[in-house]
Amino acid sequence: MAAEMAEQPGVLAGVLRRAETDAEAIRAVLPGSLAGTMFLARGSSDNAAVFGRYLAELRSGRPAGLMAPSLYTRYHAAVDWSGFLVVALSQSGATPEIVRTCADLRAAGATVIGLTNLPGSPLAEVVDRELLAKAGPERAVPATKTVTAQLALLVTVTSALAAARPQAGPAAGEAGELAALPDAVAAVLHDPSPARQLAARWQGLDRLVVAGRGLAYAAALETALKIKETTGILAEGISTADLLHGPIAAVYAGAPVLLIEGGGPADTDLADLRTLLAARGAEQAGLPLPPGLPETAQVITAVVRGQQLARELALARGANPDAPAHLSKVTATT
Amino acid sequence: MAAEMAEQPGVLAGVLRRAETDAEAIRAVLPGSLAGTMFLARGSSDNAAVFGRYLAELRSGRPAGLMAPSLYTRYHAAVDWSGFLVVALSQSGATPEIVRTCADLRAAGATVIGLTNLPGSPLAEVVDRELLAKAGPERAVPATKTVTAQLALLVTVTSALAAARPQAGPAAGEAGELAALPDAVAAVLHDPSPARQLAARWQGLDRLVVAGRGLAYAAALETALKIKETTGILAEGISTADLLHGPIAAVYAGAPVLLIEGGGPADTDLADLRTLLAARGAEQAGLPLPPGLPETAQVITAVVRGQQLARELALARGANPDAPAHLSKVTATT
Repeated sequence: MAAEMAEQPGVLAGVLRRAETDAEAIRAVLPGSLAGTMFLARGSSDNAAVFGRYLAELRSGRPAGLMAPSLYTRYHAAVDWSGFLVVALSQSGATPEIVRTCADLRAAGATVIGLTNLPGSPLAEVVDRELLAKAGPERAVPATKTVTAQLALLVTVTSALAAARPQAGPAAGEAGELAALPDAVAAVLHDPSPARQLAARWQGLDRLVVAGRGLAYAAALETALKIKETTGILAEGISTADLLHGPIAAVYAGAPVLLIEGGGPADTDLADLRTLLAARGAEQAGLPLPPGLPETAQVITAVVRGQQLARELALARGANPDAPAHLSKVTATT
Repeated sequence: MAAEMAEQPGVLAGVLRRAETDAEAIRAVLPGSLAGTMFLARGSSDNAAVFGRYLAELRSGRPAGLMAPSLYTRYHAAVDWSGFLVVALSQSGATPEIVRTCADLRAAGATVIGLTNLPGSPLAEVVDRELLAKAGPERAVPATKTVTAQLALLVTVTSALAAARPQAGPAAGEAGELAALPDAVAAVLHDPSPARQLAARWQGLDRLVVAGRGLAYAAALETALKIKETTGILAEGISTADLLHGPIAAVYAGAPVLLIEGGGPADTDLADLRTLLAARGAEQAGLPLPPGLPETAQVITAVVRGQQLARELALARGANPDAPAHLSKVTATT
């Protein structure tokens, strides 16, 4: 896991080098008039899809959401997908459910883009365009470099949507917004001490809440999943809004809260949550990120901090983060 | 909680009596050419929205998904919603975030339908049509009768979508599909013994998985939420597919699994999961439902069984299911 985490600055730099070419390839296949964008994913890729759906709606100026594959693989739904862009995320490019659903949706009129790791997967056969992370094989069970590479690819895809938009919106993304990302990720990886200190404090936990909102909600979900996978601690990613106002708040009233700052407009809820948690005497923590990053780059960097915390927690608990008990890498949802 | 649960057959009968009139009111405002359907909800209503999104895509023949309200309340996204139907679910009809987002989306071109409990809420002012559950005031903190009424209203809404579809699909819903629902719910309420026996067996749990797929996935999520709210047990609703094939399976390898049968085509995964859990020696259980119900009615009945289990678990643990520690009813996400 540590070796693959360390490859991230290089992998991300590769994604950025190809970003312009990749964005052009996407623009070439986009529907003339976009009805909406839907994301197709499973497991770890689901959290990247959450990141993509926020960005796609903001940048394309049309609604975006997450798909339910069982509608096709189980219910055999007859749906007209014309005008829709479908973004399918599969690290292996071989998950039968994802590949089969892509074929069905394309036959039903969707334009389908596939985001995967390496060339030559079955996914390539059933999509209009494929973007590759080129992160190299991932051996550790908890996915790290393929996740951050997917997130960076989603910035490329949604930048293409912004460029194709009839009238540019106020949040269409910034040119070179990820330029500082490889160095920011390298800086985080070179300074594991904040994650190590927090892991020492939290190694005895049995439950943990990870909270964020907006784009940072995706980082909260991914950090919670990584901690679950490596440690067995029941970590749950929750929207700051639900934790502030929802009935779910009380369920986790006794649990420590890790707050994820996205550096965007949804961080205002985080300030309110800090005050509320302090008033209740609840334990809370954050982890430092390099300053001055645009929101997309900050959220991807936060995901790396989350990987680091998950790994340090596993080590502090005497577990092997590379091969957690009972976890196997095979994912073959049919 | 028990008193409000007991009102459900009557509340559901009321929703069914108004179903035809309600469906006509919806058909009168639907976009001429439907681009897609998006559901807007928070907290408990989120699980009803999951049920609605499956049905809407199946029955309308166009893509459906769940919205992210923070895109409007925090990011102030500029999005063209023309052609889209938005179904907003709010039991109080007063959640500021939901009301404000409805107003924004309608101004941006969406047709907005509001599903709420009682007339005269702020939601009525900002939607094209309002459907009422008329379930009476809900006093217990864990929502029960308003949830099942919302689910039944979603069957009404999606039947209207099926009727308005250019070419009827294979899964467009059945006439009178909920006709047997009030009696089925009454039968479950009159026989709490299976839930009581399971609660006696599981009262000492600290974690629990509730698994279902397709429409039953919504019942799994809602049952997990109800158990969390009334008992503090960390119950998680998980898709059968993720539990069968995803890396998350191992995180919960030691936890007992409650299986929710929807009576639909996604139950095939349940059979595979039973075999897998048995091979691993994992504890599993199901709860009986009246036989012969169409899928929508069966899933709503399963939600009532889940309420019953949550209440019995709370009682078995010596807690008060009507007012769980720290839980308050106010939800005012801004």
